[in-house]
Amino acid sequence: MDNRPIGLFDSGVGGLTVLKQIQEILPRESVIYLGDTQHLPYGDKSKEAIIRFSIENTKFLLRQNVKAILVACNSASSVAVEVLKETFKVPIIGVIEPTIKCISRKKTSSVLVIGTMRTVRSGVYQKKLQELNLGIEIFGKDCPLLVPLVEEGAFLNKGSLLYNALISTLEYYLGEYRGRVSHIVLGCTHYPAIENEIRFVMDGVELVDPGECAALELKEILEKNNMLSEEKNRFEKFFVTDLSEKTVEVAKIILQKEINIEEIYLPES
Amino acid sequence: MDNRPIGLFDSGVGGLTVLKQIQEILPRESVIYLGDTQHLPYGDKSKEAIIRFSIENTKFLLRQNVKAILVACNSASSVAVEVLKETFKVPIIGVIEPTIKCISRKKTSSVLVIGTMRTVRSGVYQKKLQELNLGIEIFGKDCPLLVPLVEEGAFLNKGSLLYNALISTLEYYLGEYRGRVSHIVLGCTHYPAIENEIRFVMDGVELVDPGECAALELKEILEKNNMLSEEKNRFEKFFVTDLSEKTVEVAKIILQKEINIEEIYLPES
Repeated sequence: MDNRPIGLFDSGVGGLTVLKQIQEILPRESVIYLGDTQHLPYGDKSKEAIIRFSIENTKFLLRQNVKAILVACNSASSVAVEVLKETFKVPIIGVIEPTIKCISRKKTSSVLVIGTMRTVRSGVYQKKLQELNLGIEIFGKDCPLLVPLVEEGAFLNKGSLLYNALISTLEYYLGEYRGRVSHIVLGCTHYPAIENEIRFVMDGVELVDPGECAALELKEILEKNNMLSEEKNRFEKFFVTDLSEKTVEVAKIILQKEINIEEIYLPES
Repeated sequence: MDNRPIGLFDSGVGGLTVLKQIQEILPRESVIYLGDTQHLPYGDKSKEAIIRFSIENTKFLLRQNVKAILVACNSASSVAVEVLKETFKVPIIGVIEPTIKCISRKKTSSVLVIGTMRTVRSGVYQKKLQELNLGIEIFGKDCPLLVPLVEEGAFLNKGSLLYNALISTLEYYLGEYRGRVSHIVLGCTHYPAIENEIRFVMDGVELVDPGECAALELKEILEKNNMLSEEKNRFEKFFVTDLSEKTVEVAKIILQKEINIEEIYLPES
C-alpha cells in the first residue's frame, strides 16, 4: 500500500483527459497535475527542448512526493520518457508503450495515428506498431488544427458555425482514410474531447485512447509493486508554469467544471 | 545616415508579414529578425512572462548591432514596449501606437479589433482609440483559431475543405459585425496572410494592418533622426530560439519562399 499521489504532467491542460481516465480506472489514487503552460505546445518544440522541460517537470513532481509519474503528453512521451527512466528512480510511464500493448491485444487490420506534427512525424507509434509484426497497415496524419478547435470548444454546440468548421477540418484530415482503417489512435491528449465528432466522420472505426491505455498500465504496475492507494479521501492538485486566462478557460472546457489552479515557477535547465 | 540593420522580433514567424511591409516601405534597410519560437504563442502567456521574454529578445538584437527595434508581436507591443523603452536607449516601437495614429487620420465610424485573446482582452487598442475621442464605436473580438488556420495554409487552396473551414470560422468570429463596422484592425501578425478571406467575409470593410502602420512610423523616426540606410546591398538574417520543422514550414507558407533560419539559445531571465 502506498497512499502517496500519482504525478501527471502535460505541456498544458489537455492532459486533463488523462486525469479523467485515472479517476475512472484508479478511483482511490490522489493526483498532482502539472501543465507546463509556459512552454506549450510541446508539439512545436525541438527534441532537446522537450527533454529539458520534461526533466524539470519530473523534478517538480518528485518534490511533491509522488510515487509514480505518468507522462500524459505525447510529444514528451515520444522523446523524453527513456531519458526520464534513466535519470529518476520512481516508476515512469508514457502513453506510447501502453498504447502499443493495448493495440497488440485487439483485432486490428489497419491503424491510423493522429496527433501533432511532432508526434506523428517522429513516427514513434508507427515504428513500434511495425515492430509488433502484426501484418497490419499503419498510417500517420498530423492534425495541428484539432487542438485549437478543442480549446475553442468547437464540439460544444452541434450545428454551430464552429462545429461545422470542426467537422470540415476532420473531413479534411481524415476523409481519405475512411474505409481504409479499423482503428484510430488519438495521439494527442486533447482529442478524447472530440471523440464523438471523430466517430461521426469516421463511422465504424474504433478509437484507441492512449490516456486510457496508460492508466490501465499504471494500474498494473502499482498492483504488481503493491503500491496501490487505499486512501478514501483522495485529493487532486493542479499546477501550471504560467497561469493565463486561457489556461483557466481551456481547463473548464475540457473538464466541464471549474478547478483551482496554482502557478509555479520552474527554472529553464 | 546609419546603415546598421533594424531589429524585428515576434513570438514566432508571423512577424514575417511585418518584414514584408518594411521591405516595401523601407527598401534600403537591412533587417535582423528574431522569432522567440521557444515561447510561442505569446498570446497564451502572462504579462510577466511576455515582459521577461521581450527583454531577452531586445538584448539579443542589440548584440547584433541594430539601430532600432520594431516589436512586431501584438502581445509584446501591448504589455512590454513601455518597459523596453525605459530600459534600452535605441528607438523602440511597437505596433499599437502607430496603428492608433493611422486610424486617427482615416474617416472612421466604427472599428473592430481582432487578435489573440491577450491582445483583444487587454483592450489596449480599444482604450487608446477611445482616448482619441473620435466618437467612433469600438469593438474587440478574439479569434484564436485564425493563427493555426494560417499556419496550416488554409488560405492557399480556394474551395478546399480547409478553406471552407477558414471561411466558416471567419463567419463565426466576424459575421455579427457585418454592416456594423467601417474598419477592422488586424491585431495579430498572422492575419495579413488572410486579408483576402477577411475581405470576402466582411465585404466593404477597410482593413488596417499594424505592420504597415509601424513600418511607416519607423520610416518617420529614422528620417527625423537622420538614421535611414543608404545601403544598396541590404541583408536579412533570421533567428529563432527553437528551430522546429513547423517553424520552417510556417515561414515558407507566410513568405511563399524558403529562407535560411538559424537557431540561437536565449537564457530565460
